Amino acid sequence: MSMKVKGLLIVVTGPSAVGKGTICSALRQEAPEVRFSVSCTTRSPRPGEVHGQDYFFISEEEFHEKIERGELLEWAPVYRHWYGTPRGYVDDMIDAGYDIILDIDMEGARRVRDMYPGSVFVFVIPPSMEALKRRIIGRGTESDADAQIRLQQAPKWIEEGLQYDYVVVNDDLQTAVAHLKAIVTAEKSRTVRRGGALIRRLLEKGELD
Amino acid sequence: MSMKVKGLLIVVTGPSAVGKGTICSALRQEAPEVRFSVSCTTRSPRPGEVHGQDYFFISEEEFHEKIERGELLEWAPVYRHWYGTPRGYVDDMIDAGYDIILDIDMEGARRVRDMYPGSVFVFVIPPSMEALKRRIIGRGTESDADAQIRLQQAPKWIEEGLQYDYVVVNDDLQTAVAHLKAIVTAEKSRTVRRGGALIRRLLEKGELD
Repeated sequence: MSMKVKGLLIVVTGPSAVGKGTICSALRQEAPEVRFSVSCTTRSPRPGEVHGQDYFFISEEEFHEKIERGELLEWAPVYRHWYGTPRGYVDDMIDAGYDIILDIDMEGARRVRDMYPGSVFVFVIPPSMEALKRRIIGRGTESDADAQIRLQQAPKWIEEGLQYDYVVVNDDLQTAVAHLKAIVTAEKSRTVRRGGALIRRLLEKGELD
Repeated sequence: MSMKVKGLLIVVTGPSAVGKGTICSALRQEAPEVRFSVSCTTRSPRPGEVHGQDYFFISEEEFHEKIERGELLEWAPVYRHWYGTPRGYVDDMIDAGYDIILDIDMEGARRVRDMYPGSVFVFVIPPSMEALKRRIIGRGTESDADAQIRLQQAPKWIEEGLQYDYVVVNDDLQTAVAHLKAIVTAEKSRTVRRGGALIRRLLEKGELD
């Protein structure tokens, strides 16, 4: 189909440690037609990593210039390095008609919501607060004190999910991935998106191809 | 899950002869958890047909009383008999938390939209006007003159699809059914529907079960 319809920006977010990255990785394997954002990072490439495919590897100076020029949708430090989502790559994908998924934290999601009001926001929740607690502690990437703070703040974060479009429970991974896939498929069928373009094309050309 | 969440009313509509019935029948086999409306009819049961399962078999007098009492969502004559969708059955299913699909013509869909503003409307379009024409003629259930009128009116009907929520193309049946299934799954995940109820339950009880 040669219709010029923009791609969909799907933001997957949720409280820290809820497992949104795992869902997105699984979707990546099942839905190769969906693109994923390629992040910028200031860390060095590991053996086998390809610039522009795994990451855009840039210097710390370039990274901060990008922030200043508004070229990053969102960014965060992880250990001693910076990671961020380049706006240009996302825009290029959308303009080319590809659907692209951003797996980002809630602060980043808020920023994207302001910049791309037409995006779809999927909020991932745990099956229980206890499960989230186990995941936060199980990560072992932070001190006990940090984990305690995250646990205390978890209800506040989860409540923020009421502001987003969809809720996916990360209990059974396959179910969660199936729901995320269904959301992408359904959103594309919406009349306000590709659905309406199909109707207009059918009326204009008499056919869809 | 014992949450009291109402079921979803999904209305599948589209121009006459577009094949929405075929899509709904296929979905029925693939998604047994989705209910379908049981129609009222004034015709007699055929061997094996069960009252309340295949149809509600009622007299012509009862049928017209139902219309007068506002108990039918929509109705239409087919040959010498009446067919209609009983409101009570649909309401009972929704209240019991079942998702229910109505496969109805566009006039019926308009009426349901006024009565159930929270419903989801899926509009089925043909892959081409030529394909729709073949289907209208191929049905052979109407005179050439009637078929001509339908063909002439088709663009006007299809344009009305812009007012509904989703568009599904009836080209490849499996794709169309997959899209309809995805729409049902995604709609249930919406924060304004079950998704938000899940968040509130997680915050109140600490778990979803």
